[in-house]
Amino acid sequence: MICSNLSVNPQGHLCINGADTVALAKQYGTPLYIMDEDRIRENCRTYLTAMKEAFGDTACPLYASKAASFRQIYRIMKEEGMGVDVVSSGEVYTAHSVGFPMEKAYFHSNNKTDADISYAMDCGIGYFVADNYEELDAVERIAAEKGLRQKVLLRLTPGIDPHTYAAVATGKVDSKFGSAIETGQAEAITAYALRLSHVELMGFHCHVGSQVFDSDVFLRASEIMLEFIAHIKAVYGYTAPELDLGGGYGVRYLASHPEIDIAANIREVAAAMKEKCAALGLELPAVRMEPGRSIVADAGLTVYTAGTVKRIPGYKNYVSVDGGMTDNPRFALYGSPYTVLLANRASEDYEKDGETFTCSVVGRCCESGDILQENVILPANVTRGDLVAVLTTGAYNYAMSSNYNRIPKPPVVMVKDGESYVAVKRETPEDVCRNDL
Amino acid sequence: MICSNLSVNPQGHLCINGADTVALAKQYGTPLYIMDEDRIRENCRTYLTAMKEAFGDTACPLYASKAASFRQIYRIMKEEGMGVDVVSSGEVYTAHSVGFPMEKAYFHSNNKTDADISYAMDCGIGYFVADNYEELDAVERIAAEKGLRQKVLLRLTPGIDPHTYAAVATGKVDSKFGSAIETGQAEAITAYALRLSHVELMGFHCHVGSQVFDSDVFLRASEIMLEFIAHIKAVYGYTAPELDLGGGYGVRYLASHPEIDIAANIREVAAAMKEKCAALGLELPAVRMEPGRSIVADAGLTVYTAGTVKRIPGYKNYVSVDGGMTDNPRFALYGSPYTVLLANRASEDYEKDGETFTCSVVGRCCESGDILQENVILPANVTRGDLVAVLTTGAYNYAMSSNYNRIPKPPVVMVKDGESYVAVKRETPEDVCRNDL
Repeated sequence: MICSNLSVNPQGHLCINGADTVALAKQYGTPLYIMDEDRIRENCRTYLTAMKEAFGDTACPLYASKAASFRQIYRIMKEEGMGVDVVSSGEVYTAHSVGFPMEKAYFHSNNKTDADISYAMDCGIGYFVADNYEELDAVERIAAEKGLRQKVLLRLTPGIDPHTYAAVATGKVDSKFGSAIETGQAEAITAYALRLSHVELMGFHCHVGSQVFDSDVFLRASEIMLEFIAHIKAVYGYTAPELDLGGGYGVRYLASHPEIDIAANIREVAAAMKEKCAALGLELPAVRMEPGRSIVADAGLTVYTAGTVKRIPGYKNYVSVDGGMTDNPRFALYGSPYTVLLANRASEDYEKDGETFTCSVVGRCCESGDILQENVILPANVTRGDLVAVLTTGAYNYAMSSNYNRIPKPPVVMVKDGESYVAVKRETPEDVCRNDL
Repeated sequence: MICSNLSVNPQGHLCINGADTVALAKQYGTPLYIMDEDRIRENCRTYLTAMKEAFGDTACPLYASKAASFRQIYRIMKEEGMGVDVVSSGEVYTAHSVGFPMEKAYFHSNNKTDADISYAMDCGIGYFVADNYEELDAVERIAAEKGLRQKVLLRLTPGIDPHTYAAVATGKVDSKFGSAIETGQAEAITAYALRLSHVELMGFHCHVGSQVFDSDVFLRASEIMLEFIAHIKAVYGYTAPELDLGGGYGVRYLASHPEIDIAANIREVAAAMKEKCAALGLELPAVRMEPGRSIVADAGLTVYTAGTVKRIPGYKNYVSVDGGMTDNPRFALYGSPYTVLLANRASEDYEKDGETFTCSVVGRCCESGDILQENVILPANVTRGDLVAVLTTGAYNYAMSSNYNRIPKPPVVMVKDGESYVAVKRETPEDVCRNDL
């Protein structure tokens, strides 16, 4: 199986962390998000251990919580000793509501309103990752009003094209995020921040893109950022204590995707950074990384019930399920790849087992673009009532879900030590109407 | 202005249906969906009047409520005498909860679960627009259990490429929806439906795509469908009493889009259908059309507050607003065009008025693809606090909104006779967390 937490039991049912997904679908209904709590914790520990070992005790991974944000995830992050990256007042609210230590929370976003900034300060937010002048001005003004000095990182764009999907590539010069080093704008905003009295500049942040498989990307980004830190030190006498390299290592959506040795990659980046620091006469800054997808993606899968099987001779076959772009809009948005199989007849290779057909697995929305995946190979006798599993859906599925077609959101059920519990309840139609007058 | 319900007042503020959008933004906050109730009613009446005049009293437009589904919209449809097209139990629930006459509700969707079917019958749904055999079997079985005979239309695909966006083109043979006439599958499923004793076959439905500007599409679709009806009559002795032509006429997102004379188009289609019926020896069936977008799109606009203006010399300019793909994912999904201007400095042509710059108007989500529109021309001095209006957002904006980044959904404020009222309340962060355990 694509991830070590998946297996097939003697009944041919797909299991995650030892729990039978068919039994879970029966217990909780479909569509159903299932997440493996133990895998989430293991992924956290991979980063925590590797970063502390490679960069020293000041280093810390921040979970990029936009990948999957709900109360229980922040409890897990708190228990694991992770920091978090939050991107809105809504994420601040959620983290704060379960007692997450907010001094370890970093508030991102290219556009924080004054209300966001004030609210986050009231919650004791650790850092703003300031994106622009307007934000710095607002932080300065609001911090002054509240009589505090606010820690800030500046978001910079190192000008790297991470060779990933266009929509998740954010380290290039042309980006809505941050200030470009190449154009001199990064230096200008740094000089500006250093003059503010209620802003405590703690260093710099960059984000070269999600779903990065090429370790060269982090090596190159850290090199550019350290050179920038050295330049700022030389010109302004300011040494940045922190360097946040952003996220994140790629995850395997398909068996053909590489498996990344995250610890080895981090060691490689750390070795290169230490060498670079020595060459530049810098102390190694406290390093942050922001894994989101690689913490939760492979901890999750989604189970649907097949409703319709349609064969159009000479054209295509369709299997319709009881969810779709409302719970997973990533194929509609990006054409994202996913591995799809039947949870109640799980196999890694249906072609070995018998007759198959190739189909588009589509959702139930009244929209042609509501596709979960194309060119899926399934047993030819797939039928209404079969359970369809889409793997590696722990990131950016629940988080991006909508109520399009007034479809309520599925629940998130967690599995720990083979036992399940509800982390997010299933929405009801009344929930969806709750704010209608 | 792009729609006759928009104007600019002496203060230079954008007005909709006589209401100052700047004042509404101040009163209700941003982001803010504003909808013009009077325009919605006017659009309904355009279809109602044109269809009754052209097709006779048996004709009725069905509002395709997935375009914008909330309680108040079904109250308006009830008052206007419209039918509705619903696509999920959630839409059935919403319509039913405000006393919409459910005998005028048509339940679409390529995948209705047994639970959906049973629930909709309990609500007294008028029609299922049955997509496939599995659904017919389920309707037959559940109707038998409940001791009723259920009206059904069959969804057919006439094999027309409506030359619109790929994602909204659903009348081609290769579609997850319906049964193709070309392949003989439409006839086969018709014969099947006619043999079911708890299914009352009321006729046929087709949907050749949304945002249709070419009247030829409806002419061609109705011709194919009437030929099919005549064929079925000849072979099976069954005359379909209803023909549902689906949706829907295109709306103007840009000034360069054509303005469609819907009444004239309907007259043209009716004349051609009457001629065709005469040639085929058929009575004109009761005609349904399913406008969604063209009922609500131009009744709506969205007002945002600008937060950040970023100029990257040699690259691009960005204006970030306090909403984005969470309240309007259509650019991210389809690259959809929208007209964007400043609500507090409204103008149809900023280039005439003074210095401008070209920018991408982007959202606040932590995602590069979070773009509302590219190549927008705005005054060069646009700044934090300016109000940005995106026009023609009444369809598929609130309906498709998500809580990505834990961003609460904006409210829907209606304007009637120049007075505003809340139709859907603004979500709070606690609303977003409500189902978290």
